[in-house]
Amino acid sequence: MGAAMARNLLQAGNEVTVYNRSRAKAEELFAQGARVAASPAEAVRDCEAAITMLADDAALEGVVFGPGGIAEALGAGAVHVGSSTISSAFARRLTAEHSSRGQHYVSAPVFGRPDAAAAKKLLVVPAGDADIVKRCLPLFDAIGRQTFVAGTEPWQANALKLCGNFMIAAMLESFGEAFAAMRKAQVAPHLFLDVMVALFGSPVYAGYGKIIADELFEPAGFAVRVGHKDVRLVLDLARECAAPMPLASLVHDHMLEAIALGHGERDWSSVAQVSAKHAGLPG
Amino acid sequence: MGAAMARNLLQAGNEVTVYNRSRAKAEELFAQGARVAASPAEAVRDCEAAITMLADDAALEGVVFGPGGIAEALGAGAVHVGSSTISSAFARRLTAEHSSRGQHYVSAPVFGRPDAAAAKKLLVVPAGDADIVKRCLPLFDAIGRQTFVAGTEPWQANALKLCGNFMIAAMLESFGEAFAAMRKAQVAPHLFLDVMVALFGSPVYAGYGKIIADELFEPAGFAVRVGHKDVRLVLDLARECAAPMPLASLVHDHMLEAIALGHGERDWSSVAQVSAKHAGLPG
Amino acid sequence: MGAAMARNLLQAGNEVTVYNRSRAKAEELFAQGARVAASPAEAVRDCEAAITMLADDAALEGVVFGPGGIAEALGAGAVHVGSSTISSAFARRLTAEHSSRGQHYVSAPVFGRPDAAAAKKLLVVPAGDADIVKRCLPLFDAIGRQTFVAGTEPWQANALKLCGNFMIAAMLESFGEAFAAMRKAQVAPHLFLDVMVALFGSPVYAGYGKIIADELFEPAGFAVRVGHKDVRLVLDLARECAAPMPLASLVHDHMLEAIALGHGERDWSSVAQVSAKHAGLPG
Amino acid sequence: MGAAMARNLLQAGNEVTVYNRSRAKAEELFAQGARVAASPAEAVRDCEAAITMLADDAALEGVVFGPGGIAEALGAGAVHVGSSTISSAFARRLTAEHSSRGQHYVSAPVFGRPDAAAAKKLLVVPAGDADIVKRCLPLFDAIGRQTFVAGTEPWQANALKLCGNFMIAAMLESFGEAFAAMRKAQVAPHLFLDVMVALFGSPVYAGYGKIIADELFEPAGFAVRVGHKDVRLVLDLARECAAPMPLASLVHDHMLEAIALGHGERDWSSVAQVSAKHAGLPG
Repeated sequence: MGAAMARNLLQAGNEVTVYNRSRAKAEELFAQGARVAASPAEAVRDCEAAITMLADDAALEGVVFGPGGIAEALGAGAVHVGSSTISSAFARRLTAEHSSRGQHYVSAPVFGRPDAAAAKKLLVVPAGDADIVKRCLPLFDAIGRQTFVAGTEPWQANALKLCGNFMIAAMLESFGEAFAAMRKAQVAPHLFLDVMVALFGSPVYAGYGKIIADELFEPAGFAVRVGHKDVRLVLDLARECAAPMPLASLVHDHMLEAIALGHGERDWSSVAQVSAKHAGLPG
Repeated sequence: MGAAMARNLLQAGNEVTVYNRSRAKAEELFAQGARVAASPAEAVRDCEAAITMLADDAALEGVVFGPGGIAEALGAGAVHVGSSTISSAFARRLTAEHSSRGQHYVSAPVFGRPDAAAAKKLLVVPAGDADIVKRCLPLFDAIGRQTFVAGTEPWQANALKLCGNFMIAAMLESFGEAFAAMRKAQVAPHLFLDVMVALFGSPVYAGYGKIIADELFEPAGFAVRVGHKDVRLVLDLARECAAPMPLASLVHDHMLEAIALGHGERDWSSVAQVSAKHAGLPG
Repeated sequence: MGAAMARNLLQAGNEVTVYNRSRAKAEELFAQGARVAASPAEAVRDCEAAITMLADDAALEGVVFGPGGIAEALGAGAVHVGSSTISSAFARRLTAEHSSRGQHYVSAPVFGRPDAAAAKKLLVVPAGDADIVKRCLPLFDAIGRQTFVAGTEPWQANALKLCGNFMIAAMLESFGEAFAAMRKAQVAPHLFLDVMVALFGSPVYAGYGKIIADELFEPAGFAVRVGHKDVRLVLDLARECAAPMPLASLVHDHMLEAIALGHGERDWSSVAQVSAKHAGLPG
Repeated sequence: MGAAMARNLLQAGNEVTVYNRSRAKAEELFAQGARVAASPAEAVRDCEAAITMLADDAALEGVVFGPGGIAEALGAGAVHVGSSTISSAFARRLTAEHSSRGQHYVSAPVFGRPDAAAAKKLLVVPAGDADIVKRCLPLFDAIGRQTFVAGTEPWQANALKLCGNFMIAAMLESFGEAFAAMRKAQVAPHLFLDVMVALFGSPVYAGYGKIIADELFEPAGFAVRVGHKDVRLVLDLARECAAPMPLASLVHDHMLEAIALGHGERDWSSVAQVSAKHAGLPG
């Protein structure tokens, strides 16, 4: 993801310095004009905006607050743009910590897989101080097809991103249960899929539906383990907001079952296999 | 629904006799070339195919097996095409009863609202004996934009239709929970909707999402009461097939709550209000 | 059950005529003073009260409304006491049908297994017209240890019985989930059981908890298949009353899974095995 | 709780030094022979065993690891006995931290309310190194009626305690749903309660059932807010152990709803009001 975003930022004429834990990955961007830094701190020194794209709260915490991290090197008045899918709680901590250092923080998570990032087709959802978000808009234009400002508090963007991932997870659960019933009713899965694609007219339904109908859950585009983590963050958000989300609880429990069965590294659409097993089906 | 389908059948050059409990409604089709019958029996005597489109099992039972019903008048070798959303159990009974009378039965439920029916854009899902289904294909072409044969047992088409409605109901539930969390997080509902429409690219998400974001649940396109009945039929199917569907159970319980609160006649997307109430929101 | 109840009725000095589909079973009561009838009708002719104890709605329907059934033979003013666990809907039908024949109907389901019936320790829960229930009290005293009048409408007693069975089913589900977590945490199941028995001080917890800790689900005291049927009736009641019962839905889905896995004839406490499987445990 | 436990420890002949954030509360024990300390550190210096009983992880963390905390003052070879209901994760951290200081840690949560503590009727569930637990047994005998050793890892005791609280929470949920259905069926709540008390024969059912039937949720014996926190810890445990607990998820969501409605300080049995509201009942 990060590499594709950096490429598009370069293409838009920005000066870009990149850092990756595995330096080889960073070097790939050298040929395209990026400088390569040896640490997050080195990457962000004297920059206007530092964009982070990491796996989770813990990884981002290390890169921001660890030794050689962003927090100690980012200049006053510069902005940290966090694009990772993180908890709303951690987004609030980032907001406070950057603010106490005279730095700005904007959350700007994105929707889209690596291929969408490469094709500059991400949906970008920033939130934060209106002026700072405005200043970053050219960056969002450079990496995505559309930008939606979620609010003036950075964590609101993370809340929206988590709810969006929940919407996809809910769709996977619904597909899983329906496919299991269809298989028990001896209706061909691909026939059911064709009708659903015609009904919803959505490429997301078409894409995930095909994985489930084909029962091809490896290699994972997005692992159950990661999806389960995201749904856990949705439930944390639900708790903070005092907004019960029983469907998120249901998906959480089914993904936990997939993990208990040793399927944590399969694609998260393999939550459908949990419903299949409950119906006594193989798989 | 039935009127729109009859109009398209006429337009395709078929001879059509119509019957409706309220004769005035049937008469409207007279100008377009339909004959109007005084009873179901009169409507189907000497026809090749009798198409029924009714509210539920009970209504269809009356029209088929009641006095002056279809079963007593349909000729040997003729086919009853049932387009209503009925239980898979009743579809099996229709299959057996028609068969015992030398008649044929095909289930052919449709996806699409009345405007889709008028525009000949229904999705038609027939199932039944392959030869009989084949014989009916011109009828399906006349009323819909695409036909998907679900299987050789009529009830399989009803099973598929019910699972399709479940998929929509599950989407409504996911929207309801996400909108409630977004409102508690002070993210504007229409902003969330815009992102979801961009993410899923589905007119179904756009349409229902707008009703929920606007909180305009009346007049109902499809009432909670009817949706709840359909989800109950989904659970009956799940039981018959021994395929647990906990998300269907969840939607069932939330729609039942909407009914308990006196909202049975609102649009079924108002299941979102149940999640809103659970979060302490007004509405 | 029926035999034990008949024995206690005889012991209390009542004249008893018995009927069982398998005549041999009925004959066993002959030595204890019962007359043996060749049909339900013969058994109830000229009696004051006809007590039925059958498996489900269908069985009771056959015995009451079938040829040689109770309805055609019970005298005017006599009472049918229905002790089976039946749906509240069927209880209402019985009430209406008996009333239309000048007969009375009282629902009087019981709590307790066959050994409790033999020991005269049943809990009897009658409901119906107050005078008629009063007239039957000596019968209830003869078969149980305590009588609780649920209301003046017979179906209310069935509603209470169903809710009581739901309470037990919910306890089984809670045990199943807790035992699975304890096993994954390597806490000995019998140790957990000992604490729960000390905590709740309930013989019901002790009895079912032991079956689950021992994993001895056969022979069944009460089969999953039957328990699942009862939970379905609970959900039917919930629907009629417009009172959502998501925990009943959860138990329903887990018992359905047990059936899908081929465990329908195991004891209903084996719903605990479903939770164990979800945790990746054997069993 | 703590005061009652201290009183019983004194009565058993132990030398006891007490510390409480509010010194007045600690002073009450002075007359009964306790020394009163000005800080946790002062309380545990030179003692053999330090017993903590606090509200949650955060409170215990302050008392153990904060300035003037237990960790810095407890002697080598002495044991910290943690009786609070804490997360299994924090129990593991306590185990590791104490071990690194040459101190011992035993988790020994208890079942029972303050009145049970006063009456020396607690159930004590210790876990930890077998020799250390053995050394503490006289303490457990002094405060409780029965001791159950959960395992050799301290966190196992916390896991068991959490599962026990889950069992009670599940019972509350089952009562809530059943009472709502009974009220809609116009069966008197206290009549239903009487039958359940006769059926389960459990003082826990009798006690909580009465609160719910009386609808007297204040003052709280144990607040929804605290119960919700415990159920959250149960779900954290379920996640760590990879043992899905959908009933815990359900109770979690209903308690969250109670909090969203502003009922966080009512007794946790008021989760029953959530089910009542879902059925359209007042309250």
